[in-house]
Parts: sequence; structure tokens; C-alpha cells
Amino acid sequence: MKISVAILGATGYTGAELIRLIDAHPHFEIAHLGAHSQASKLAGEVLPGVGGHIAAMTLQPADALLPDEVELVFTALPHGAAAASVFTALEAGKKVVDLSADFRHKTHDVYRAAYGADHPHPELFNEAVYGLTEHVRDQVACARLVANPGCYPTSVLLPLIPLLKAGVIDTTSSIIIDSKSGTSGAGRSAKTDLLYCEINESVKAYGLPRHRHAWEMEEWALGFAGCETKVRFVPHILPMNRGMLSTLHLSGSNTASWFDLLQQAYAGEPFVKILPQGTLPSTAGISGSNRCDIGIALLSESEAVIVSCIDNLLKGAAGQAIQNANLMFGFDETTGLARHALWP
Amino acid sequence: MKISVAILGATGYTGAELIRLIDAHPHFEIAHLGAHSQASKLAGEVLPGVGGHIAAMTLQPADALLPDEVELVFTALPHGAAAASVFTALEAGKKVVDLSADFRHKTHDVYRAAYGADHPHPELFNEAVYGLTEHVRDQVACARLVANPGCYPTSVLLPLIPLLKAGVIDTTSSIIIDSKSGTSGAGRSAKTDLLYCEINESVKAYGLPRHRHAWEMEEWALGFAGCETKVRFVPHILPMNRGMLSTLHLSGSNTASWFDLLQQAYAGEPFVKILPQGTLPSTAGISGSNRCDIGIALLSESEAVIVSCIDNLLKGAAGQAIQNANLMFGFDETTGLARHALWP
Amino acid sequence: MKISVAILGATGYTGAELIRLIDAHPHFEIAHLGAHSQASKLAGEVLPGVGGHIAAMTLQPADALLPDEVELVFTALPHGAAAASVFTALEAGKKVVDLSADFRHKTHDVYRAAYGADHPHPELFNEAVYGLTEHVRDQVACARLVANPGCYPTSVLLPLIPLLKAGVIDTTSSIIIDSKSGTSGAGRSAKTDLLYCEINESVKAYGLPRHRHAWEMEEWALGFAGCETKVRFVPHILPMNRGMLSTLHLSGSNTASWFDLLQQAYAGEPFVKILPQGTLPSTAGISGSNRCDIGIALLSESEAVIVSCIDNLLKGAAGQAIQNANLMFGFDETTGLARHALWP
Amino acid sequence: MKISVAILGATGYTGAELIRLIDAHPHFEIAHLGAHSQASKLAGEVLPGVGGHIAAMTLQPADALLPDEVELVFTALPHGAAAASVFTALEAGKKVVDLSADFRHKTHDVYRAAYGADHPHPELFNEAVYGLTEHVRDQVACARLVANPGCYPTSVLLPLIPLLKAGVIDTTSSIIIDSKSGTSGAGRSAKTDLLYCEINESVKAYGLPRHRHAWEMEEWALGFAGCETKVRFVPHILPMNRGMLSTLHLSGSNTASWFDLLQQAYAGEPFVKILPQGTLPSTAGISGSNRCDIGIALLSESEAVIVSCIDNLLKGAAGQAIQNANLMFGFDETTGLARHALWP
Repeated sequence: MKISVAILGATGYTGAELIRLIDAHPHFEIAHLGAHSQASKLAGEVLPGVGGHIAAMTLQPADALLPDEVELVFTALPHGAAAASVFTALEAGKKVVDLSADFRHKTHDVYRAAYGADHPHPELFNEAVYGLTEHVRDQVACARLVANPGCYPTSVLLPLIPLLKAGVIDTTSSIIIDSKSGTSGAGRSAKTDLLYCEINESVKAYGLPRHRHAWEMEEWALGFAGCETKVRFVPHILPMNRGMLSTLHLSGSNTASWFDLLQQAYAGEPFVKILPQGTLPSTAGISGSNRCDIGIALLSESEAVIVSCIDNLLKGAAGQAIQNANLMFGFDETTGLARHALWP
Repeated sequence: MKISVAILGATGYTGAELIRLIDAHPHFEIAHLGAHSQASKLAGEVLPGVGGHIAAMTLQPADALLPDEVELVFTALPHGAAAASVFTALEAGKKVVDLSADFRHKTHDVYRAAYGADHPHPELFNEAVYGLTEHVRDQVACARLVANPGCYPTSVLLPLIPLLKAGVIDTTSSIIIDSKSGTSGAGRSAKTDLLYCEINESVKAYGLPRHRHAWEMEEWALGFAGCETKVRFVPHILPMNRGMLSTLHLSGSNTASWFDLLQQAYAGEPFVKILPQGTLPSTAGISGSNRCDIGIALLSESEAVIVSCIDNLLKGAAGQAIQNANLMFGFDETTGLARHALWP
Repeated sequence: MKISVAILGATGYTGAELIRLIDAHPHFEIAHLGAHSQASKLAGEVLPGVGGHIAAMTLQPADALLPDEVELVFTALPHGAAAASVFTALEAGKKVVDLSADFRHKTHDVYRAAYGADHPHPELFNEAVYGLTEHVRDQVACARLVANPGCYPTSVLLPLIPLLKAGVIDTTSSIIIDSKSGTSGAGRSAKTDLLYCEINESVKAYGLPRHRHAWEMEEWALGFAGCETKVRFVPHILPMNRGMLSTLHLSGSNTASWFDLLQQAYAGEPFVKILPQGTLPSTAGISGSNRCDIGIALLSESEAVIVSCIDNLLKGAAGQAIQNANLMFGFDETTGLARHALWP
Repeated sequence: MKISVAILGATGYTGAELIRLIDAHPHFEIAHLGAHSQASKLAGEVLPGVGGHIAAMTLQPADALLPDEVELVFTALPHGAAAASVFTALEAGKKVVDLSADFRHKTHDVYRAAYGADHPHPELFNEAVYGLTEHVRDQVACARLVANPGCYPTSVLLPLIPLLKAGVIDTTSSIIIDSKSGTSGAGRSAKTDLLYCEINESVKAYGLPRHRHAWEMEEWALGFAGCETKVRFVPHILPMNRGMLSTLHLSGSNTASWFDLLQQAYAGEPFVKILPQGTLPSTAGISGSNRCDIGIALLSESEAVIVSCIDNLLKGAAGQAIQNANLMFGFDETTGLARHALWP
């Protein structure tokens, strides 16, 4: 007997990825697809990649009642909009993995600073578990609400946490992070600056002076490693659909030990791969998989570059969400998730 | 107890796709990876997308003896080179799915015409089953050697066969087929004309006056539909990794009935999707899946355009190979194969 | 003393290309930039590629009076919207090159069939010169209004006209044309199906059962070659910014003579290049140039494939517009136009 | 009477760009095209974008004698190989713009450190003028040999020099530079890792721990601004043909003044555009032009991000080479060079 699942915000890129993963999952099955402007259409009309019986499912309006049998809800809605749906689902006794930013922060002040608005349900902040799976398995396993991490923070925190914990990173000045993301991270709304001809054959920085994910990185560097840090975070958008690469320009001490620290921290992890020292990953190596590939290059005893790659729609969104949901329902964490990239 | 599998030619794009699929397959497991120029390296050094324990497997030389426990061999080798490996594997009592062109033809003359060389093992022509799965399931199920169809012929024969069988296509003049392929179909050898900067932002036709796959299309239009046909086939290479779209410019009779003919032919098929009449597919809709999406637009009572899309590495190569292998070993045909695209 | 020029519809992709070409032209200078929704912004705010003093020009509303000194107007407006601006400009004594479809047809009936609406100024149909430059130089030179050809018709008519004139093409059945276009041809409006992630890594056909440009091809095959023809025209959209490739699947007689017919027709032409027989062009070879490259492959005595390539924004739009404008003002036709591609 | 020019290394991407620019230049004309492995072919056979009479020129072997009438030689050869050709050309009384790295350094030691080999003609180091045009016009004007700057250093030094001169950059710790380049910068040799399918839909860092251009940046930060600096430079390769974006993560003092410093430094410059404060450039905005677009975002009083964009083949190679050649022969610096991008 499979567990019935609802996906709210099913017609965006993250929603489509959730459909792909859940429909192939041995223990979950899709019972409800919520959409907004596209409600009442068939899934197959709006999502070109969807086949089989899912294509014939009718998209439900945002405020539709969730079927009773649904036990798990994935909310892939814009921040601000997600909170109300999360609240309603929890009230109805369902578990929730929220892929928006609404429950990633622990205080109302930081949420307001990052998102510029009041939060409708700050009373849930305490309960929400920030689901960077590798570092919070036990809490995820018994959570009712998991706040799925942002894509940039996932790519940055995974390499950073073990080094911060070991005290080898200099945190007296800002940690400089230069990230590059495929365009699917910008969502599926019809904006001129996301048109094919505007993105193709071009690269640009955006989100300055301070991207919202900078707060998330700082909050969870503290949360997981106990370190007050400041990040200088500059994201860029690239002409590719998927993939995210973060370049961490790091200073600290005893860089010769960093590779071992990372190796030990992630030994046996199914979805974190530390490349041989001096080898740096490409996003092609993880596209379509739930993996985070991490490479390190030493510049001196006190300077190193770390490069980490994830698929922004998988380990950066829908993949990590399934990884968390697996734990929430007692399944093996890797169930239904690919370790190999779809390459090329 | 899983079935042990060998992949010969593991380091090309088709080989990599076989690895991805087989490593996630519930009943097959990889026991041997054969390579040529890359032998003795680790799989993970040559294939960026490969994770887990497969990354640590050593690539074996082309002439290495296959392990005894291997029951099934996939040969993803260049035509001409595959035949000898196929022969050896069969002699050793293994079943073979050959992804090269070496056993797709029934007569030595046609092979010579298409490939310009003598064939080392024409004695196997008779036994080989041309594995266009939807049309040859029973024979595949008891085959020792399946010749996996070419990518272009798969995309063309699937829509064409039901219409040829129904006698509604005009075969007195050539059938005009204009195909567009992603670049992975051209293979992974270091050639100047396959460099990123030569392919990107460009499209070109190639393979004229007569591409090898034209013989294959004609042979199997006859084989499956009993029709002598001539095709005028013009392939093009596009700036994308995967995906193949064939545009069939067709003349015949009673075009109003064609949609129903296709619908009926493929009703219930897990991997062939006939789109609503007037709706045409895109390769984005099938990329990463084993599906063939087919759409039809009527121009007049006697003229129609049919567009079919496959992922050249899946339904056009590794996916159909697994589909056939599933049948050869008595598994459900869809095992380990995706129906949803990886989108976007 | 340079000739003052106005560009109406300056903020689309064709408008931007007109700016690029005219600002570098030795005899034209930009005096007025008209826009619609973007009026009152600076050109440089809306057009990232524009530098120098043009970036500081204010975009004028659609109904702004044209400065007196303007002698030449380029209208790069949507069909339907262009006609009124063309009329006003002619009334004010200016010459016009209209890049819309509004004056490409000679009868109101065909216009209505192709564009589904009444035309506000059919009285100008007779005066408008259809500016396929190589075939209509004398009339362009003394025209007040040039209707700049569509991109697809330009790519198709250039190779077709000499062969139709020579009577070697079979026109008893439809001429089959399979065209592939970069995405800039679809314009710059914010539509979901033009988003980067929807176009990238994908190809699709569109515009069936009958694209508007089919009427234009048939009208001018008749106009220039005196042949009643029917075309079966299937356009496709590709993941690249620029470039258009048309594949003509032709039947006729004496194909061995076709190369010479094309060679002779375009001997000495600065912007039409006939490739050696058997060599087929790529769009990379003409991107950024005003050239049309044409190649031919013979399949039999009665069957041949012709491939022609243009940059849809140059020979398919702004480039041919400048070529025509040069003639209208007595300049060498090649002035300000590139023969070499921007490659890669 | 035009000045006769030779291009050595004409069949790479930089060579092709030189051909495009010089053939459209009013005062230069191409008299000699040198190639290496492609010698004796026609230019049009090897370079798809080349049209007109240049396509019919025969490529000369590397060691061919330069015609007497040639006054100016562009060497677009690999480092190491260029020096001998430069020497020979100077001996024959010609002026040279060398686009290789061979004469960018002032001491043999630094050259050896960066390029790992002895230099055959260190005696020319002193005479060579490092041609970052905006900062060295007078010396270029009377130079016999100009060492054209590297692409990365051009994109980094243009924004950095005015700030270093003003003493507002903290040079006590390394300056962190994260650069992103289109693939044409990697050259045109047939390497597996430059294949379309390996680069497309992927991004990666390379060249660590220390890319050769780091030495060049440090040498000329000192040379032009008199500052000893250390750079931590991490280049990345992106899936696009052209374009280079450098992100400078800077610390210093009084960041509020930096915009004015840049504005004043480049006021009136034809090819350097300082964007309004807070606006960041994209490579689409400069692709196909000789411009460097620079934007600045302030993070705090002591921290700022500067983003600069060039076309690696223009301001990063062939464009700056023409800019320098214009000065060497007394022409207006902008002759034959575009300020507008080819967009999209």
C-alpha cells in the first residue's frame, strides 16, 4: 500500500521534478496536484514531460481541499504563499515538506530582513526542521514539517559545515562565495529577462547587494557548526537549464588537512562525493542526480578553493525533499533517487 | 539474485547511459565494463556522471575475457567492431543486445551497401532479432541476439508502420523524412567538427546523399509492414545534447483516419504516446525518458505531417536495449525505464 | 551629411539589429527611436547591447511625430500595427522600408487568408515593392515603400527562383520545405513558451497546418518565376538565438544541371554564396552576416536536396532592409553590411 | 592605399576574428594568411564564416616568407610558437601585434614561472609594449612590437587599475577574482573535453592552483598602478561561445567613491562603459563588440563587488589588437571596431 502524496505548485519546474521522482518512487503515489493559474487543465497539457496516467490528472485549484488519504504534502509554492498551505495541511494532520523559504528561518526578524514581509505563521518556526539531510537525519525522521533548504545554501553548507566545525576557516572576515546557477532556478514565470534569447550566450550576476540566501547560509552555518560567520555571496545565472556550482574562496589554517576533514565528514554518504584532491567537479557530473560533488584545490597553507556542484532541482530542491520524505516515513533515504547523472 | 551484465564500449555516451540505467535496475547488475583506449582507468575517471561503487570499477580492455557469471552482454561498440565481440559472447553462452548496426540487416548485400565493408559474421544475420520492441515482442522474448534499432529508424518506423500496414501511405514516390538530432548521437570522439564552438548556435544537414539509416528504414518498413518503400532521408545535427525529432512529410489517402490508426496501434503501449490530433511534440517532452511521442497535423485529405520525438540515447539506444533485455529475461518490459522526461 | 533615419519598433530583436547596423553605417544616422510599452525609457536601459550616444537616446511613443529631417523610416512593428505607421510616414514625405508583413501581398484576399484580418491601407499594395533584393533591384531603387521579405520566404525563394525559372522543378505536386529557425524569430514578448528553459535542449515544429509565410512563398514564386506552385512548409524552432536553415526536398528533372543554374543566377552577387556541389552550409557560417549560403546534394537524376542558410535577423530582416535602403538612396548595396559571419 | 597585413595562425577562433575585422577595416587589407596543419587549403574550406575573396585565399605554411608589402603582422599562435615568428617579422622590418603570451612579461623569470619553459627571444622583452590600450596609448603609438593582453587580465585590469592607483583597494591580502569564460577561449583543437556534449549544460572551474594569467595580472597591476598585489584567480568555463565575465570580490576603503573613480578614469573612452551604480553587466551586452562594460555594487563601506564583461575574442583578443594597430599606424583608435553588441 503506497503513501498518498499531494504536490502543491505542481506546474513549476520544481513541481515537475517532484512529479517525476514521486511517480517512480516505490512507496509514494501522487493523489493530488495543486496549481494556481493553470488549475482545471490536465497535467499533461501544462507539463510536456509528463507521461502515463499522471498526464491525465486534473490540476486542482490552490484552495482545493486535500483528499483525506493524503499523508504527505510537498509545497513548491512561492515564499509567502506557501505558509498558509503548510498551516492548513498540518492542521489536517498531514506531514509537510515545504520547498519554499517560509520555514527556513528561526526568527521573525531574520525572515523579515530576508523577505521583506511579515510571516503569517511564525508560531511554526520552532517546529520546522531545516532539512539539510546529512546533518539532521534524526530530527527529520520525526518531523511533522521539514523546511527544505534553498539550493544555494545546500551547495555552500555541505562543504562548509565540516570545516567550520573543525575551526579551520577564518571567520573574522567574510567568507566569499561565488555561485553559478542554471536558469531553472529562476522559475517558470513569463518574464522578458528569462526569455531564451536573453539568457542564451550570456552570463550575469544578480541579487546584489544581498541575496536572500545569504541570511540562510549564515543562520545555518551557526545552526550546524556553531560559528558566527558573514558571507559575501554573489550568485550568477548561466545559459543552462540545470546545475549549480558554488566556488568558495576560503582562507583559514592548515589547508592540507581540509580534504581529510571533508572525506571523514562524508564517508559513506550516498549523496555526497568528495573528489580526489585537486580534481574539481562539473555540473554535468551531477545533473539529474541527487548528488553533491565537492572538490578542493589548495593555493597555500592558508588559502584554498572549494567547488561544490548540485543539480538545483534535485539536491537543491525536489531530490533533497524526497530524501527527507523518505526519512520521515522510515524508508531508506536513497529510495527513488539517482546517484548517477543523466549525462550528457 | 540479480543477473550479471557486461557493457562493452562503456565510455561512450551510449555506454554511459547503459550504466545509468542498469545500475538502477532492480534485476540487473553490472559485472564488467569494457573500454578500448581508456582500459585500465577507473570508470569514474572517464565518466563524470557516474557515482557510487561503479565509479571505482576498472575499465577492462576490449579483448578481456568476460566473467563466467555474466549472462547478458550489451555491445555499444562502433559498427564493424561489434560483430566479433557479439560472436565471442554468444559462443560463451551469453545473451547479447547489440547496439551497433552490425546485425540490423538480413542480407550481406544490404550491409555492404550501407556500411561499405564485408561483415565478419554474416552467419548470425538470420538469428538476430531486430528489436523494435513494440512490433516484435515475442521474438525478442526468446532471442539470444537482439539487434537494437538505430535511433533514426526507431523514430521513423514507429509512426510509419501502422500507416503502411493500413495501406494509406503513398509508396509510389519516396517518403520524405527530415530528421533533427542532438549531438550526442555523433559520439564521443575528439573531432574538430564536434567541438562545442562548432556545434553551438548552429544547425546543419549531413550524411547526404544517403545516410546509412535509410537502408535500415527501408528494410524494416518492408519487414514489419510488408511494403516496398523508398525513403528520402535528410538528417540534421542540432545544438543540444539529446533528443531526436523526425518530421515525416507524407502523402496518401484518407488522412482523417490516420490519427485513429496510430491510436489503435499503440493503445496501452507504455512507451508510445500519440498526442491529440493537431498537437505536435517537442524533444523536451521525452528527454531522459524511454518514450516516443508522436503528433499528427493534417494538411489536406491526402497530405499530413507526422512528427515523432525520442531521446536518441534512450528509446533510440540504451533505453530500448533495456526494454528488449527485460523481455529476454522475462521481466516486465518497463522495469527500470522512465516514462517521464527529465524536464527541463 | 548623413541621412536621418527613424526606427519604429526599436526595442525588439529586429529593431536592435537595425540600430546596430545603422549606427555603423557611413551614410545613415539614427534620429528617432520609436517604441511602444517602453517609450520614455532610454535605449540603453532596454537594449543591453547598445553603447555610445545611442544608449542615451530617449525612446519615443508609437504615435510621436517624426522629426522633419527624417528621410527614411524602418518599421519593425507587428503585422497589423505597421500599416498605419507606414501610411503616416509616406504622407509626411518619407521613404519607408517596412519589415512587417503588411505590404508583402498584392491582394487583400491573400492578406486576409494569411493574417485573418482586414488591412487598413490596401490602397498601398500596388505601390509597395517586395524587396527580395537580388531579384528586384531596379524597382527597389526607385521605390517609396519597400515591403521587406519574411525570413522563411527569403531563405526559400533565393534558391528556388532560378530553378523555377528554368522549369526544372516539378510543380505538379507540392514543394516540400522543412525549415529550422533560431528563437529570435519568435520575438521578444514575455511568453512562457519562449522562456529559456522551455526552448533550450529542445526542438519542435509549429505553425501547422499552414504558416503565414507559405502564402508569401507561393505568391512570390509566381511573382518572380511566373510559376504557380504549392508549398508544404513546416517550420521548426531550435535552441539557438540566430540562424535559419531551410531544407528543400525537391523533385524535378536534370538535377545535374541545378548547381550550374544556381551558380549562374548568383554569379557576382555579394550576399549569395553557392557552395561547391555536395557541400552543405551551416548557420554558423552566416550568423552575423547578410549572406545566404546555398548548398545542393543530388540524390538522383530527378531528386535533390537544397539547403539554404541565412541569419534571420540580417538577410532575413534588418540586413536585407539596409540592403534595400542602400539602393533606395543610391548607395552601394553592400554599404554597412558584413559578408563574414561572426564566428564562432 | 591600404596597409598590407599578415595573420599568422589564421584558422583558430582568434585568427578568424582577425580576418573578420581586418577585411572590413577601411585602412588594412589581408595579404597573407598563415596556418599550420591546415596550410595549402583554402581559407573558406577551414573557416565556415568567411565569405568573399578571402574564402579563396590559400593558407600559407607557418614558415612561409612574408610578402614584402606586408607592413603589419598579427601573430595568433600558441605561446612558445609565436616568439620565433615575431622575431622574424621584426627582422624583416614589419610591425607586430602579438596575441600570444610570449611578450607580456618583462622578466625571463616570471615568463618561466608562468609558462614553464625558456623563452627563445628574451632580448625583445624590453621593447615590447603591453597593449592594454586605454593605459598605454602613447607607447603603443610608437611601438614596433605590441604584446596584446590576455583576455582575463584585460577584464580584470581595466576596473582594477584606477582603484589601485587611488589607493582604495586593500592589497594586504589577496584580491579575489572569479572569472567565467565562453568556450572559444579554450581554442580550436580537437580535445574530448571540448566536445559539444561535454561543455553544454555544464560549468566547471579549471586552471588551479594558479592559472598563467594570474602572473600577468600581478605584473601589470604593478606596472600600471605601481601596486604590489596578490591575486587569487579562479577561472571557469561556461556553455557559451563568447563572452567573459570577471567578478572581483574587493575589500578596501571608502567604497562610496569607487564609482566616481571609475567614471572619471574612463570618461570619454569609446570602449569602456561604466554602468550606473548598482547595475551589473551581462556578456550579452558586449558580445561582438570591443567594449568592456563595468558595473559596481556596494556591500558596505569597505566591501564591493565589481563585475566586468568583455568579448574574449574582441576586447580580449582580436578587437584590442586592432585597437592597438590603429594607434600604431596613426588611425583613429575606433576604426573598424563595433561599439554595439551583436544582440541577441
